[in-house]
Amino acid sequence: MNFMKNLFSIIMLAAGLSASAAEIASPDGMLRLTVDLDPQGAPFYSVAYKGAPLVENSRLGLTADETSFNDGFRIASVDTLTVDRTWQPVWGEYSEVRDHFREMAVNLVADNPERALTLRFRVFDDGLGFRYELPAQSKNNYLTLRGEATEFNFADDHTLFCIPGDYDTDEYLWSETTFSNLPEALGNYRKHSEAQRTGGTVIQTPMLIKTKGEHPVYVNIHEAALVGYPAMLLDVDTEGFDMKASLVPDRLGVSGYLQLPFSTPWRTLIVSDDARDILASQLIYNLNEPCKIEDTSWIKPMKFMGVWWEMFTGNVKTWAYSDDYLAKPGVTDYSSLRSNGRHPANTENVKKYIDFASAHGIDAVLVEGWNEGWEDWASYRKNRQFLFDKAYPDFDVEQLREYAKAKGVKLVMHHETAANAADYALQLDRAFQFMKDNNYDAVKTGYVGAVIPRSEHHTSQWMVDHVLDVAKRAADYHIMVDSHEAPRPTGLARTWPNWLAQESARGGEFESFGGNPPSHTCMLPFTRLKGGPMDYTPGLFQGDLSYYGEGKTSKAGTTLARQLALYLTMPSPMQMACDLPENYERFADAFRFIEDVPVDWSDSRYLEAEPNRYITVARKDKNSDDWYVGAITDDQRRTALIDFSFLPKGAKYEATIYEDAPDADYRTNPQAYRIRTVKVTDKTRLKQPLAPGGGVAIRVVPLK
Amino acid sequence: MNFMKNLFSIIMLAAGLSASAAEIASPDGMLRLTVDLDPQGAPFYSVAYKGAPLVENSRLGLTADETSFNDGFRIASVDTLTVDRTWQPVWGEYSEVRDHFREMAVNLVADNPERALTLRFRVFDDGLGFRYELPAQSKNNYLTLRGEATEFNFADDHTLFCIPGDYDTDEYLWSETTFSNLPEALGNYRKHSEAQRTGGTVIQTPMLIKTKGEHPVYVNIHEAALVGYPAMLLDVDTEGFDMKASLVPDRLGVSGYLQLPFSTPWRTLIVSDDARDILASQLIYNLNEPCKIEDTSWIKPMKFMGVWWEMFTGNVKTWAYSDDYLAKPGVTDYSSLRSNGRHPANTENVKKYIDFASAHGIDAVLVEGWNEGWEDWASYRKNRQFLFDKAYPDFDVEQLREYAKAKGVKLVMHHETAANAADYALQLDRAFQFMKDNNYDAVKTGYVGAVIPRSEHHTSQWMVDHVLDVAKRAADYHIMVDSHEAPRPTGLARTWPNWLAQESARGGEFESFGGNPPSHTCMLPFTRLKGGPMDYTPGLFQGDLSYYGEGKTSKAGTTLARQLALYLTMPSPMQMACDLPENYERFADAFRFIEDVPVDWSDSRYLEAEPNRYITVARKDKNSDDWYVGAITDDQRRTALIDFSFLPKGAKYEATIYEDAPDADYRTNPQAYRIRTVKVTDKTRLKQPLAPGGGVAIRVVPLK
Repeated sequence: MNFMKNLFSIIMLAAGLSASAAEIASPDGMLRLTVDLDPQGAPFYSVAYKGAPLVENSRLGLTADETSFNDGFRIASVDTLTVDRTWQPVWGEYSEVRDHFREMAVNLVADNPERALTLRFRVFDDGLGFRYELPAQSKNNYLTLRGEATEFNFADDHTLFCIPGDYDTDEYLWSETTFSNLPEALGNYRKHSEAQRTGGTVIQTPMLIKTKGEHPVYVNIHEAALVGYPAMLLDVDTEGFDMKASLVPDRLGVSGYLQLPFSTPWRTLIVSDDARDILASQLIYNLNEPCKIEDTSWIKPMKFMGVWWEMFTGNVKTWAYSDDYLAKPGVTDYSSLRSNGRHPANTENVKKYIDFASAHGIDAVLVEGWNEGWEDWASYRKNRQFLFDKAYPDFDVEQLREYAKAKGVKLVMHHETAANAADYALQLDRAFQFMKDNNYDAVKTGYVGAVIPRSEHHTSQWMVDHVLDVAKRAADYHIMVDSHEAPRPTGLARTWPNWLAQESARGGEFESFGGNPPSHTCMLPFTRLKGGPMDYTPGLFQGDLSYYGEGKTSKAGTTLARQLALYLTMPSPMQMACDLPENYERFADAFRFIEDVPVDWSDSRYLEAEPNRYITVARKDKNSDDWYVGAITDDQRRTALIDFSFLPKGAKYEATIYEDAPDADYRTNPQAYRIRTVKVTDKTRLKQPLAPGGGVAIRVVPLK
Repeated sequence: MNFMKNLFSIIMLAAGLSASAAEIASPDGMLRLTVDLDPQGAPFYSVAYKGAPLVENSRLGLTADETSFNDGFRIASVDTLTVDRTWQPVWGEYSEVRDHFREMAVNLVADNPERALTLRFRVFDDGLGFRYELPAQSKNNYLTLRGEATEFNFADDHTLFCIPGDYDTDEYLWSETTFSNLPEALGNYRKHSEAQRTGGTVIQTPMLIKTKGEHPVYVNIHEAALVGYPAMLLDVDTEGFDMKASLVPDRLGVSGYLQLPFSTPWRTLIVSDDARDILASQLIYNLNEPCKIEDTSWIKPMKFMGVWWEMFTGNVKTWAYSDDYLAKPGVTDYSSLRSNGRHPANTENVKKYIDFASAHGIDAVLVEGWNEGWEDWASYRKNRQFLFDKAYPDFDVEQLREYAKAKGVKLVMHHETAANAADYALQLDRAFQFMKDNNYDAVKTGYVGAVIPRSEHHTSQWMVDHVLDVAKRAADYHIMVDSHEAPRPTGLARTWPNWLAQESARGGEFESFGGNPPSHTCMLPFTRLKGGPMDYTPGLFQGDLSYYGEGKTSKAGTTLARQLALYLTMPSPMQMACDLPENYERFADAFRFIEDVPVDWSDSRYLEAEPNRYITVARKDKNSDDWYVGAITDDQRRTALIDFSFLPKGAKYEATIYEDAPDADYRTNPQAYRIRTVKVTDKTRLKQPLAPGGGVAIRVVPLK
């Protein structure tokens, strides 16, 4: 009897399995997504763009110790929905963002064992996102997550722009390669322990694909709303041109611990045959939750300087106050130590920065090396390296608080944790209260070194939670956050706009470690920046460090004019002027642009773009009618064509152009620049020469 | 030339090596310790008691990845010192403690590689302690600790009283065995995963040895001042009668991360041929740092009741408010959940406890299950189980705050962390502020489950640090701490007297899980209690749980009278009356003793003692001239001989005796007790019968 019943229901199931494929297209119909099940009930999807296949049949699913969500499914129902709405970001490239998509929820069920899984897809004109939604199950509502089946399969040996997979860092240079050449391209990273651990052909997101052929399509692959889940890497099949999601595990080998119901982050593909659309896309923000901070009036985009670059210019100045490398924060009486005399984070020196910032309208000054703990870096072999409420003897918190107040300058506090996130959590409330008590409303956090808890990596689930917890806790104190060495951003700044910026890529500091090639900043906006702003630290005027005679000979991969252009091509609400006041005084006319350039925009127009080659962008100041234009190139000389048709018809503007001099070259003559003024209207087409490694920055002001 | 120089210095070294053994004796000369180096320069020690060898030559040393401190040493110098001082504990068994010892620091140096190590020994009349002091080295000042060479080697097949080695729990029954029978004795624990992990013959400290022969010597082996270091287990060589220190590792296999200079905890041996001296010894407190809290006026020993036992009496009542096991703290809106109606931590019920406590002079009421998070216990598979500032809908924090205040009763908060110490650290300041805002000044912490950070065990270095950090942070808020499932105490309550008590052993709750044999509480004072007070939760009047008809049939291993005696034999400044108010009302005359008995003492006299058999103790109230006597036996009927000579000569007292009735037996007739009154003076010798599993409690009040 029973057997007959089962047999009967199995036959019914078989019927259920023959459900036809589910399909959905973008509002403009150009992007088309199909979802289906194979005979084993394993879900897969494919994507076509402008009628041509883009992503071939690619598996979907999740694997856990308790049960898996990979096969045995049938489609129980499909819900569709069209949404067209706009929202106003607290800051960003646009004063208004359109969130326009068609949604399809494919509800899967399996009977033996009983499981339910919803695949939710959102298809926009500029790409798509999908996520796994695990509702409460009849059993197994706690998962020890081992991985995803998620694939991104392509049909040909396309071009890849990527960095090596890594559990702990993303501070790499970019490779422009192909599927088949990936092993060779990543070869030089094989020695890097972490990259090695993830295998030779694992890469990180955000990454960019440029398809082969006459009419290439650009595809940015990343994720949105990474919350309560590990970061995603991509395991590349270099012969099959396929990529598979690879979730960062903790040191015990587990990728995540989930309590259902749970929704994963969105897996995102930004798609266009026009490279400029990749730069303009707000898709990842659109897939994040709306702002969760009610009163955002205290969140203020800012430009800042820092007692910071002094420690990079040579091998002389130190973050540490003393040379007693055995000093222990909270144990050693630092007032009894002798200063090494090479400690820039001292009261008098900070005052100089405050004076300069105040005189030049720079909002804030960051100070690194102000607190106890920098004497050594054996952080992993001690359970406390830093105190966040204990200043060095030569750093007078109260005096500087009053001095900065009087000068109308804000101070930005630095919380380097040496990656001891566990101890930072223990000190967090006190650290933030200490900031508020001393008039700090922004913090730069750092996680340099191996992570404590020692079970974790920088991008494993626990750390993903930790860094978001810090941003949320900061919001409780009305503190803005710029996090370094944290998991790469995934658009969470829409939800927590006090999280102004992150590092999470190879930044400007590397100009002091051999330099960044000019192509590097032609790549970041196509990849890293899609998740959120980067604290890249532009504004480097003295890029040849031999100038200081302090033992470093590193030369920056940039002209001076290009550094000004970065304020446009690397937009961030927390933008640094990284160089020393004395260098800005040496080039006061050029620094004028940094004084003028805003950090918040009402509109942005990408005029020219090709990954790893060049970017030209125009942006409108959020608080005036002024426009700003920035253009950069790689190591090749180039002429940017700047079409001013974005200006209101007929209106006359004066453009102040900060450009490379004719003989400028980032290798030989980086500080050769010119400043000229021309009249422009919406009819103007400006042919603007850019030096090798050069750029141009233009301020466009209405004529009265 | 150079070679000759080296050769020469090597010859000088050789001379140095022939330094004779270092020796030191206790102030009374009975205990004698010798330290020497073997031909390889490996340090070892031995101990003699009353002229006979006690501990044979036993290795000393430390092993780390970077370098080891095991051999190659010579004795550079030996410093000795005699100290005789007294100190006043904030609470305890004595109002004054004598700290009288002779100290010997053996300063070892090694040349290749260069190392320095000081062995510091303190020899008291009642035992000795030694520790490793690692000064700053010429190199390798950061150690990845792998273990200790420390041995405790004995000469014969002595009797051992011990529990299995375990990284995560010490809630075991005690084995009375011998070296050679240890494997068999621990056999029944083999199935226990953690005990298994440590191997079959690893045991925990504190443990007790009783030497073979006509004149046995008792030796308690433990550690003092466990700070910044993992807990110690003992790896037993059952044929050689030797024991070797085995440090608890983290899940990556590392025992500790040390920055030098660093001093290890003290390894302690409490030694006497009179078992009563083991109970009286304050050696472990003496080896801890003096009190670090300046104003201790807010630290108040207390008796408390609890909304707690109701959840143990049967399989009905729950800590959880609802039956929705998928509820997520901070995510689920609990006010929208339906109560399961079996949740004792509700406002009305707590008021009943407050009323009873107020009527009977009980200082405080603990409430378990008051806060969000008890709905499920998959703690290890979620990164947040509990919120510590979010009460269940049926627990009105404000109303109870005012009600308790009006009734002159304190509330004790419960912080069950589900062993997510990482998340507790993140919530800690807010949790303690919430307590102060609501008039709580004591907390019971809990760490049930596998530890998060997932790299840790309950007794690995990181957790040792965490639990002390919590006690210190609590002190900042003037909060007293009773920590459960925390590393076994090592006398740190002297330094942080707000740390009133811990569990860290199999407690009274097990009377509801099959019961504790009477011998269990005849063992704990010789072992577990040497590190500090235990929140054992005595006062169980209704020990037969079938009484409740709620599905449990567990019978407690105790008579009712014995439960009163435990307030004397298990001294603690935070002493519970664990049973339900209605049971105390049923036996109001017996409960009168719990109302009267103090929890803080000016003097204590151990009158009779044999481990695992019986204990008889007299204590003087710190705040009056009253004395109290308690006696317990194991499962054998016994007559305690109570010698009242501790009373002032000639003075007359009235003794109220709470005793087992003649027909009392813990198995068959546990609630049969009598209360009688007799006159006593310092001449009185009372022959007091104790029932099997029984005991006696006596209040001794001066006659006016």
